[in-house]
Amino acid sequence: MDSMSTDHVLSTTRAVRLKLDLHREVEPEVVYECLRLAIQAPSPSNRQAWRWIVVRDQQVKDQLGELFRDAGTAYLRNRRAKSDAAGQPNPSRLVDSVQHLIDVIEQVPVFVIPCVLGRPRGFNAADAAFYGGIFPAVWSFQLALRSRGLGSTLTTFHLRHEQRAAAILGLPDDVTQVGLLPVAYTTVSDFRPAPRQPVEEVAFADRWGQPLA
Amino acid sequence: MDSMSTDHVLSTTRAVRLKLDLHREVEPEVVYECLRLAIQAPSPSNRQAWRWIVVRDQQVKDQLGELFRDAGTAYLRNRRAKSDAAGQPNPSRLVDSVQHLIDVIEQVPVFVIPCVLGRPRGFNAADAAFYGGIFPAVWSFQLALRSRGLGSTLTTFHLRHEQRAAAILGLPDDVTQVGLLPVAYTTVSDFRPAPRQPVEEVAFADRWGQPLA
Repeated sequence: MDSMSTDHVLSTTRAVRLKLDLHREVEPEVVYECLRLAIQAPSPSNRQAWRWIVVRDQQVKDQLGELFRDAGTAYLRNRRAKSDAAGQPNPSRLVDSVQHLIDVIEQVPVFVIPCVLGRPRGFNAADAAFYGGIFPAVWSFQLALRSRGLGSTLTTFHLRHEQRAAAILGLPDDVTQVGLLPVAYTTVSDFRPAPRQPVEEVAFADRWGQPLA
Repeated sequence: MDSMSTDHVLSTTRAVRLKLDLHREVEPEVVYECLRLAIQAPSPSNRQAWRWIVVRDQQVKDQLGELFRDAGTAYLRNRRAKSDAAGQPNPSRLVDSVQHLIDVIEQVPVFVIPCVLGRPRGFNAADAAFYGGIFPAVWSFQLALRSRGLGSTLTTFHLRHEQRAAAILGLPDDVTQVGLLPVAYTTVSDFRPAPRQPVEEVAFADRWGQPLA
């Protein structure tokens, strides 16, 4: 179940959209086990203020999927317009894969909606802790999925219709959704590390702009 | 270097404060390697809008440490007052360990300050993506440290004095710090999984309040 090294898992847990297996069932046990690992992450003052909605009901997936598609389509329209204006090729690989996920969203076996008790405050000193108390656990969940042959991607499209989604999910007013993770087995197992800028270009020593020794 | 299983690393990467080795040097190479793994994390639209300041200069650590201590002390004062009001024992294990970190902060060998290009917008639909684009990478950094015998904890105290910290670090106006990670080797290697609520208490099926099957 857990034969990959940590470095390999950290290097190859990609945002999976095109390679989600829409036909293979995801066992409740594997989601449970990945959530169990997710909530081992630390949280501010150890409050564990996370809640997780695991959606398998087709009607709920259809309703959330509609919100996802509406907001996602608007995003892609905007992005394509920007690419056109800049004379860039359309569609890009990213746009392609986002379009695919929008097309099939309701067919993904499981949605996981991570939530936080409370609301963000609207300023960085508070909200860095608010979101910093949930996204490590979300990412642990994704890493645990990856190490078991499943994939997902953190999406936030449906938050454009946050209140409608909250009504669908029956969320209390003071609970905040922070994303929607479509979860499935992946159709391939050999993900490669993504190309990235070298560390030297994104890290500095002591002060902004100072090269890392 | 990377002999721990993923499940073990996800289960035992704790917020380390008491067990940071203040006397053992942290090699630049290990920080570099953990940053290299960190930036393999996905980011919204693959923008890789992260920047990382690796602070070793004692003067910079002293200046940031002062902001950290000031805000951290205020936090603990507030927390102790709340515990007193609730008739709870003081100090708790958590308060104890935070106090320790405040006491020794400048002696921690390395601070890493993760930053994002841009500013949060002050509403959840945008900010979930903003912070969701950095904290997975931050957590990967911490997991990579853990798998190499180092520890850290995500702190946000100094963000109470965000502008003063930005001036110390020479940050451009449109760059946002999201935390400060004190980084050191750990004085023990046998961290245990933290006690946590069972998954059943924090996860629901399809709708809020509905038991996970």
